[in-house]
Amino acid sequence: MVGSLAMASRSPSSSVPMAPLLKDELDIVIPTIRNLDFLEMWRPFFQPYHLIIVQDGDPSKIIKVPEGFDYELYNRNDINRILGPKASCISFKDSACRCFGYMISKKKYIYTIDDDCFVAKDPSGKEINALEQHIKNLLCPSTPFFFNTLYDPYRDGADFVRGYPFSLREGAPTAVSHGLWLNIPDYDAPTQLVKPLERNTRYVDAVLTVPKGTLFPMCGMNLAFDRELIGAAMYFGLMGDGQPIGRYDDMWAGWCMKVICDHLGLGVKTGLPYIWHSKASNPFVNLKKEYKGIYWQEELIPFFQTATLPKECTTVQKCYLELAKQVKAKLGKVDEYFNKLADAMVTWIEAWDELNPSENAATAIAGKPNGIAKAK
Amino acid sequence: MVGSLAMASRSPSSSVPMAPLLKDELDIVIPTIRNLDFLEMWRPFFQPYHLIIVQDGDPSKIIKVPEGFDYELYNRNDINRILGPKASCISFKDSACRCFGYMISKKKYIYTIDDDCFVAKDPSGKEINALEQHIKNLLCPSTPFFFNTLYDPYRDGADFVRGYPFSLREGAPTAVSHGLWLNIPDYDAPTQLVKPLERNTRYVDAVLTVPKGTLFPMCGMNLAFDRELIGAAMYFGLMGDGQPIGRYDDMWAGWCMKVICDHLGLGVKTGLPYIWHSKASNPFVNLKKEYKGIYWQEELIPFFQTATLPKECTTVQKCYLELAKQVKAKLGKVDEYFNKLADAMVTWIEAWDELNPSENAATAIAGKPNGIAKAK
Repeated sequence: MVGSLAMASRSPSSSVPMAPLLKDELDIVIPTIRNLDFLEMWRPFFQPYHLIIVQDGDPSKIIKVPEGFDYELYNRNDINRILGPKASCISFKDSACRCFGYMISKKKYIYTIDDDCFVAKDPSGKEINALEQHIKNLLCPSTPFFFNTLYDPYRDGADFVRGYPFSLREGAPTAVSHGLWLNIPDYDAPTQLVKPLERNTRYVDAVLTVPKGTLFPMCGMNLAFDRELIGAAMYFGLMGDGQPIGRYDDMWAGWCMKVICDHLGLGVKTGLPYIWHSKASNPFVNLKKEYKGIYWQEELIPFFQTATLPKECTTVQKCYLELAKQVKAKLGKVDEYFNKLADAMVTWIEAWDELNPSENAATAIAGKPNGIAKAK
Repeated sequence: MVGSLAMASRSPSSSVPMAPLLKDELDIVIPTIRNLDFLEMWRPFFQPYHLIIVQDGDPSKIIKVPEGFDYELYNRNDINRILGPKASCISFKDSACRCFGYMISKKKYIYTIDDDCFVAKDPSGKEINALEQHIKNLLCPSTPFFFNTLYDPYRDGADFVRGYPFSLREGAPTAVSHGLWLNIPDYDAPTQLVKPLERNTRYVDAVLTVPKGTLFPMCGMNLAFDRELIGAAMYFGLMGDGQPIGRYDDMWAGWCMKVICDHLGLGVKTGLPYIWHSKASNPFVNLKKEYKGIYWQEELIPFFQTATLPKECTTVQKCYLELAKQVKAKLGKVDEYFNKLADAMVTWIEAWDELNPSENAATAIAGKPNGIAKAK
């Protein structure tokens, strides 16, 4: 079985993909510093969609995009021009810059993928249409209030098991779909150094909801979300150039997002789909980026585990600004960096609202904050 | 792939099983009303172990056990003789009676299985040694304080992913291993009625920890636990003869157990191993047993979700007695049944302590109640 879990060949898939779901409602956001040759392999799956390419690093460099893709590309000059002084909240020389793409999009859904991720195969040898699975994940509810032992109860051939309260079977709207990686797992630098040869060959055929009140490490490599429901919380922080830390952009977004989803009664899924992650990044470089984060996260996790938002926070923006305030109050003493980050979180929301004015008057979210409905 | 997920043939496995793990430290508890022919198929896996058979129903009936198994058998007369008036806490005419086996055992570990469960095959066609997988689950730690997206981080080929706090990588002692079922899923009567033909054919190759603070529906069909760590909380309640409810025995135990594990810093796993569940029980009979439970659980879940135990509760027994008190105080008003159940919970602990006197002076549990250790 393991042998079949290979990267799919680079020739276009012979199988005919399904009609593209949500074709006009989803943008694919790709941060990059190089030519996007990797898109050739994704052509059967991505070509129907619009791409937002966020070019990192030297803006004078020309990024080649394969023929036939519909895209817009933003480099640092564009970001500075569009956001003005608020561009300070967007990281430079770090893939955290991708969140600019979330902000500039006008679509309901976002899929973001790294440019070293390729099409994986399932155990039967079939190419995995990662985007299609993400869309399925986003379009069907989550179950954050109670754990279902047969995993996603909405999937064909599955259901809620005995003992699952009926009042919770409606589930919650799904805000985030976190996909996984075959081949190179998403390890931190110390684990990369200790296990340089470890590869992920296990295909786990499951999608599950991360329960309410539980934090997880969200990886930005293969990630989709409902921009209308949670986009404004998907800020990837201050990383890279001029910052004391890297490789915590997606983690930071994941922790903030999860606290807010829990508060607003929204769901977060993890599991399928897999992509094929081709190449491990340099563990020595990673260690330099990560070492403060490895230390700081021991303070960050208890902070996020105990963070609560007042009931007045009825929109993602209000939640996020409240969280920024708490970051400053409680994490500022861990390191001066968190004061700067808290300010950038506020700037992010200001920039978001500027680019998304209609959403500014956002109504309260559709989720059920309280979970269970009383029987009486 | 699905096609290979068949029940293994009834001939003894040709593969040589591993040397039996924990041979002298584990009892297999089987509740039954019939001859135990199903053991033939389990012979290669179960024969090295001691069986505790709890005969339900008419005690004059003779239960045949296949040759060569080492077992003790208790019928209702035995239970009444051994427990005296305290036998009232053990259900009659319901498989909930199995918990008498947990109490009478002197071993560190228990595996309990229903007599309509057979050996399943994995996707490669290999017979699954369910007991061996349960033992592996119990012997390696759980990760209740933070979710690992690559599932069990202790498994070969897996680890903690980037962003998983290092202070939490030691994990927590595992108290419970909840296994799953191929073929007939564990559905409630309404779902059975609506989907009579649904079969579980999906083999999900994962073991995961049910996070702290999250409840799940624990099924007693294929279940293992560390009796020393959590046995006294594994009371299957008052079901069957003379009771207004059935089929909530394992659920009740699971909710009580989970609240106590969360309080004591112990872990609960679910996922592998699978067994082959051969036959759906009668949905009309089940509906009669379940209908009050279906209604009551809408009150029970919020009760267990919000139940907290004071820090003086440092042993399972103390936790369980405190929970019994809260059941009486808060659920007694849902139905008089819960007053009776709360009393039976106290009787259960008295009987447990009587049969397990050395444990009575139990020391505090080894788990880390608090989860994360501070970095400073």
